[in-house]
Amino acid sequence: MNFPSETIANAVEQLSKFPGIGKKTALRLTLFLLKQNEDDVNRLSDSLNRLKTHVTYCTTCGNVSDSGTCSICLSPRRDKSLICVVRDFQDIMAIENTGQFNGLYHVLGGVISPLEGIGPDDLRIAELIQRIENDEVRELVLALSANMEGDTTAFYLARKLESSAVKISAISRGIAVGGELEYADEITLGRSIVNRIPYRV
Amino acid sequence: MNFPSETIANAVEQLSKFPGIGKKTALRLTLFLLKQNEDDVNRLSDSLNRLKTHVTYCTTCGNVSDSGTCSICLSPRRDKSLICVVRDFQDIMAIENTGQFNGLYHVLGGVISPLEGIGPDDLRIAELIQRIENDEVRELVLALSANMEGDTTAFYLARKLESSAVKISAISRGIAVGGELEYADEITLGRSIVNRIPYRV
Repeated sequence: MNFPSETIANAVEQLSKFPGIGKKTALRLTLFLLKQNEDDVNRLSDSLNRLKTHVTYCTTCGNVSDSGTCSICLSPRRDKSLICVVRDFQDIMAIENTGQFNGLYHVLGGVISPLEGIGPDDLRIAELIQRIENDEVRELVLALSANMEGDTTAFYLARKLESSAVKISAISRGIAVGGELEYADEITLGRSIVNRIPYRV
Repeated sequence: MNFPSETIANAVEQLSKFPGIGKKTALRLTLFLLKQNEDDVNRLSDSLNRLKTHVTYCTTCGNVSDSGTCSICLSPRRDKSLICVVRDFQDIMAIENTGQFNGLYHVLGGVISPLEGIGPDDLRIAELIQRIENDEVRELVLALSANMEGDTTAFYLARKLESSAVKISAISRGIAVGGELEYADEITLGRSIVNRIPYRV
């Protein structure tokens, strides 16, 4: 693609670095910005810059926060005896948006992946064990992805905490709500039969 | 959606102002930026800011340019007797990318649209007529959209230039290259039969 202006070419190049945004979309976004007034564009670029300067991570759970400790860890209405273990802070947002969990979280910052050279020491596992030892944690809910890396990490954590009194559970796997049986993959369908639950009306 | 940080919420809000980018995509882009290093984010926000401070418009044709006159108007290899009339500068990019046009352009900055209150005086029509009078323009190629506004604008220009010696042509309409006849709408198919051209092997 040829651009009539270096400035436009540059903006397109920068925007197309976003995942899922190709040159054509980047151009569309650039042309949109060109038509906005200067204040709006400034507001956008400032808010992007602030992402790197203002966002910090909660010293307890690893969630993003604007100050030292995140609002979830600070909340007096949260059940501090329940910790949900997630890979990344966006998983916290996903679970929070369900409104179904009232405990605290712990962000591992990744999952064990020998292929990518990520071992247990690269994750916030020591911090998790510290929290379990220091605080009165009753249950650990493992909310990791259902793939090899997630399963390996879950297995590692379960072994590591075998001797502790904490109860370990994992989020359930199965057919998605509203999902059609015929389109589900065999492993998911198989698991959902094996792990069947009592029917509630 | 609840965000763990005001800064993130703000970035998501700003990014979701882009056309075709909803809250979920904006969040994905924000999380991507959070994982980039500060220099990369700075480079992005700078390039967006420069869009409003550095991009100017060619004083002759209205194309975007980094300096007073655009590179197309300045090029000695362009046929200055041929002017292609387009609505917006992105149409110039689209035509330039075909590599099939060697004349100059003229950006109208819109099309006549009584519904939106856009009349001939709001467009760069006076500038176009000036160019035709001053320069030795042989042919005007109307490359406007095939809708009511585009047709109205084309008709207006043709009437306005009736008395001048300039030849007026319009880009051809018809079935897209590679397009299936059965899926073409009747108006396009009808026009492509009426405006049939000699078959060339």
